[in-house]
Amino acid sequence: VKSSEPALRRGPKGQRGEVADRIVSSARKSFSTNGFTGTTNRAVAQAAGVDAALVSYYFPDKAALLTAALEPPAGFIEAVKGGVATPIFRRGRALVQTLIGQWENPRSAEIHRSIILTAAHEPIAMDRLRQVFGQNLLASVSASLDDDERVLRAGLVASQMIGLAMARYVWQVGALASLPSEDVVRYVAPTIQRYLSGRL
Amino acid sequence: VKSSEPALRRGPKGQRGEVADRIVSSARKSFSTNGFTGTTNRAVAQAAGVDAALVSYYFPDKAALLTAALEPPAGFIEAVKGGVATPIFRRGRALVQTLIGQWENPRSAEIHRSIILTAAHEPIAMDRLRQVFGQNLLASVSASLDDDERVLRAGLVASQMIGLAMARYVWQVGALASLPSEDVVRYVAPTIQRYLSGRL
Repeated sequence: VKSSEPALRRGPKGQRGEVADRIVSSARKSFSTNGFTGTTNRAVAQAAGVDAALVSYYFPDKAALLTAALEPPAGFIEAVKGGVATPIFRRGRALVQTLIGQWENPRSAEIHRSIILTAAHEPIAMDRLRQVFGQNLLASVSASLDDDERVLRAGLVASQMIGLAMARYVWQVGALASLPSEDVVRYVAPTIQRYLSGRL
Repeated sequence: VKSSEPALRRGPKGQRGEVADRIVSSARKSFSTNGFTGTTNRAVAQAAGVDAALVSYYFPDKAALLTAALEPPAGFIEAVKGGVATPIFRRGRALVQTLIGQWENPRSAEIHRSIILTAAHEPIAMDRLRQVFGQNLLASVSASLDDDERVLRAGLVASQMIGLAMARYVWQVGALASLPSEDVVRYVAPTIQRYLSGRL
């Protein structure tokens, strides 16, 4: 978040938001398809329907553009906080519902999908994803546990959450892709709950 | 497997194996980093240290090269069969051990990693992965269940297996990356076991 803020703060107010958003959205598509090296200011500008000079105006370099493209969607942090604020004995269910909510909203789904695909071939993106995952999932595990156990449980939660997102939304593996969301919650929540607070 | 066989069968015996292997290995790296479009015969040949004409000799087109690059590593099918042949009440543990065995052997790990990364941006690779996953995991679920339940349970198994591979070996999320493999089995096997045969 931090490194992209200075860039986003530039420019006249009103318009800025919309133009910068269009640039970021087109950059996100390009990074996930063509990688960091394969992404150019010119192509991003063209896909966004803006002048190439505007891209460098808002984003001083490609790294700043990548940082902005890897920002979690609006509402993501709040959604995770909502899950985390749920009492521990129902938190497994709440976290699966949060994940589903994020992926079943087309706007945030597109952002998560791009981030995952970009992370598959860009180490910077992978680090960023690891960081966002780390912070948010670590917070989901009871603060009363010792640090080693919290990190372990958060990692196990991550393994099932990442796999559910990949299998259901990215790869769309067989039955998982078409399952009603309440069934996904029913089947997967007990796994998350055990990783959060069950006997390991 | 099928579509690459005719290509691999060509050429004089002895040498063929080693040269074709080098070509496939270099193609695999290129597909996972540069995608299908960004991969050229010339670059693959150069990285493999062979003449570009040899690439087209063994692989009539880029699609044949991609098919060969997406082949699961030697021993994979047998390893999965071993897991599947384990009695159902211990099969969760056996499948997690199979996954770990595949990823902790550097040779097969490199192949699995490339396939996953290629699948992240190449629809053909994603289809192929879905197919391999589908066949192998479907076989791991009891044949005595009705088809809908088998497909559902196999999908749930896939979600945890994919996530474990991604979190531990590809993204190397915190604690999971450094956990001794017997601990991974202990923590994750009960999840797989429930998806295979437990109450959902």
